[in-house]
Amino acid sequence: MKRRPQALDDLGEHAWIARVVRRLPRGRLTLLGPGDDAAAIRPTRRALLLTTDTLVEGVHFELGWESPASLGRRALRVNLSDVAAMGGRPLAALVAVAAPARLPAAVLDQLMHGLAGDARRAGVDVVGGNLAAARQLAITVTVVGESGRRLVTRGGARPGDDVWVTGALGGDGAAVRALLAGRRAIRPPVPIRLAAGRLLAEVVRAMIDVSDGLIQDLGHVCRSSRVAAEVDTLSVPVAAACRRVLGAGAARFAATAGEDYELLCTAPPRSRDRLARLAPRLGCRLTRIGRIVAGRPVVRLLDAHGRSIPLRRAGFDHFR
Amino acid sequence: MKRRPQALDDLGEHAWIARVVRRLPRGRLTLLGPGDDAAAIRPTRRALLLTTDTLVEGVHFELGWESPASLGRRALRVNLSDVAAMGGRPLAALVAVAAPARLPAAVLDQLMHGLAGDARRAGVDVVGGNLAAARQLAITVTVVGESGRRLVTRGGARPGDDVWVTGALGGDGAAVRALLAGRRAIRPPVPIRLAAGRLLAEVVRAMIDVSDGLIQDLGHVCRSSRVAAEVDTLSVPVAAACRRVLGAGAARFAATAGEDYELLCTAPPRSRDRLARLAPRLGCRLTRIGRIVAGRPVVRLLDAHGRSIPLRRAGFDHFR
Repeated sequence: MKRRPQALDDLGEHAWIARVVRRLPRGRLTLLGPGDDAAAIRPTRRALLLTTDTLVEGVHFELGWESPASLGRRALRVNLSDVAAMGGRPLAALVAVAAPARLPAAVLDQLMHGLAGDARRAGVDVVGGNLAAARQLAITVTVVGESGRRLVTRGGARPGDDVWVTGALGGDGAAVRALLAGRRAIRPPVPIRLAAGRLLAEVVRAMIDVSDGLIQDLGHVCRSSRVAAEVDTLSVPVAAACRRVLGAGAARFAATAGEDYELLCTAPPRSRDRLARLAPRLGCRLTRIGRIVAGRPVVRLLDAHGRSIPLRRAGFDHFR
Repeated sequence: MKRRPQALDDLGEHAWIARVVRRLPRGRLTLLGPGDDAAAIRPTRRALLLTTDTLVEGVHFELGWESPASLGRRALRVNLSDVAAMGGRPLAALVAVAAPARLPAAVLDQLMHGLAGDARRAGVDVVGGNLAAARQLAITVTVVGESGRRLVTRGGARPGDDVWVTGALGGDGAAVRALLAGRRAIRPPVPIRLAAGRLLAEVVRAMIDVSDGLIQDLGHVCRSSRVAAEVDTLSVPVAAACRRVLGAGAARFAATAGEDYELLCTAPPRSRDRLARLAPRLGCRLTRIGRIVAGRPVVRLLDAHGRSIPLRRAGFDHFR
C-alpha cells in the first residue's frame, strides 16, 4: 500500500520550520539564527549590500522541470549573482516561502536542502525566513552581503570602454524554450560568479548580472551611465546547448534570452592586459563583445558587417 | 467615457519600478538606493538584525478590506514589529512584490506610497526590492536593523518572572472575524512599538511580538526558555472593539486571535518599579497578565478562580 506523502497541512507551519531549521548550517557570522523575531549577525566594517529576488511557480519555474533541490539552489544563486555583480561577498540569507497547503512537505525539505548546501559552500548563513500559505509556490530570498574595496555599480561606463561578459549565454533560454514547447531539456544550473565578480570589481568601471537578457541588461548600464553600446553579434559567447538547438540564430537568441546570470561589465581598452592576467583566476571565460559609445542610451546589436540588427524584444519584462 | 485604469501589463515591470523609485525617500544611511544589482547601506557597529515577512492576498488580507496604502503600511509594520521585539532599530527595507498582470498599477502605487510614508516616519530607507508576476498579490518585506545595547530573545524567561503585554489585544481578530462573516469592519492599523521595544529591552528578560496569538506566542517563549506560563484571563487587556463584539468571551478570544503586533515580555517581579517608571514613555499601556513557572513548555489560561480554561486552538498556523 502506498502511503500518501506528508503535506504541509499534515505537518503544520511551525513543525516544518522546526524541522528545516535543525538542518541549516550555522556559521561564525551568526549571533542569533532562525527561531526568534529577527536574526542577528555580526556587523562588518564594509558597506552592506542588500538584494532580494522572487521565483514564482508558473513564471520562473515549473515543478516538473527540475528537482526541488535544484530550484532551491536557483532561488539562492540568483541573489548571489546580484552580490557578485557589485563585487561583493554574501554574508547571510533569509528565505520566505509561500506554498499551497497540499504541497508535499518533502518538496520544501528538498528545496531547502539544495539551498542550504549552496549557502554552506558560498559561506552564507541562512539566518531566518518565513512560511506562508498561498495558491502558487513562490520563494523570495534576501541576501545581505558586504561590498568589496570598490562598489561597482551600473553607472560607471564611459564612451570608449570595452564591453565584456563572463561564461556563455543562451543555455537557460534554449532549455526553457524547449520545455515550454513540451520537449525534454535540462536547465543548466545558475552559475556562481562570486570569485569572478570580486576580481573583476578591481578593474571594471560598471558591472551588472545578465538576468533579463544581455541587450536589456546592457541597456540598464547605458541608462545608468548615460551612454550607448554596440554589441558584435558574432562575438557573443553562446552556450553549446543553445547553438545546437538554435543553429544560425543562436547568437541573436542568446543576446536576448535572459536568466544567464553571467556578469556583464565595461572597462577601458587600457585594462585589456590586466583583464587577460585575471582571466585564468575567474573560473570562467571572459569575452569582449562590444563597446560603449557616446549617445542616448540604446544598445545596438551589430552583424558581421557592422550593420544594426533589428530586434523584436530586448529581453524579459514580467508584465509586457 | 470611463477610462480603463492602467494595469501592470500596460505599464511594464521596469516602467512601474522607475516610477515608484522616484518617489521613495532617500535617507542618510543609503550609499546606493534602488536601481542597481543590490543596494548598499552604511555599516553599523551594532549587531545587524534581519527579518522578513510575507502578506498574501486571500490569506493575510483581501483587497476589499482596506485601502492599498493601509496594506502597504501593514506589510512594513509587521516587520518593524519583529525589530521592536528584539529591542532594535530598523535601518533599511527591501520590498518584493508578486502581482497579477491585470492589477491596476495605481493599487501598487498606493501600496508603496503607504509603505514609504511609514518608512520615512520610522527612519527606514527603502533601498530596493523586486516585482514579479503571480496569480495572487503577495508582498514580502525584509527589514535590516541594528540591535540595541542588549539583544532580547525569546529564550530569557525564568520561573518567577511576570508576563507583560503592551497595548490591547483582539482588535484585529474581531475585525477580521466580522469581515470574514461578510459584515463591515475596519482593521485597526498595526501598532508601531519601536520606542516601547527599545525601552523595554533595557529591563525585560525575554520578548516576542504577538503575531500568531498571545497564547501561541507565549508558547514560543516557553519553548525557547524551557519554562511554562500562566495567563490570568481577566488581566488580558482587550481592545474596545473586540469587547463590544465578543462580550463575555472577549478576553479568551483576544488571547488566541493573533495579528495584534503588541509586545509580550517577561521580567522578574523586582523590575516592577522600573517598568512602572518606564510606562509613561512607552506610548502605550503595559499590563501584567501572568507569570512564568517551572515545568514543561505549556501555557495555561486561568479563569478568575485560578482554574485552567481549555482551549480549542492556541493561535494561527498557516497550514493546520
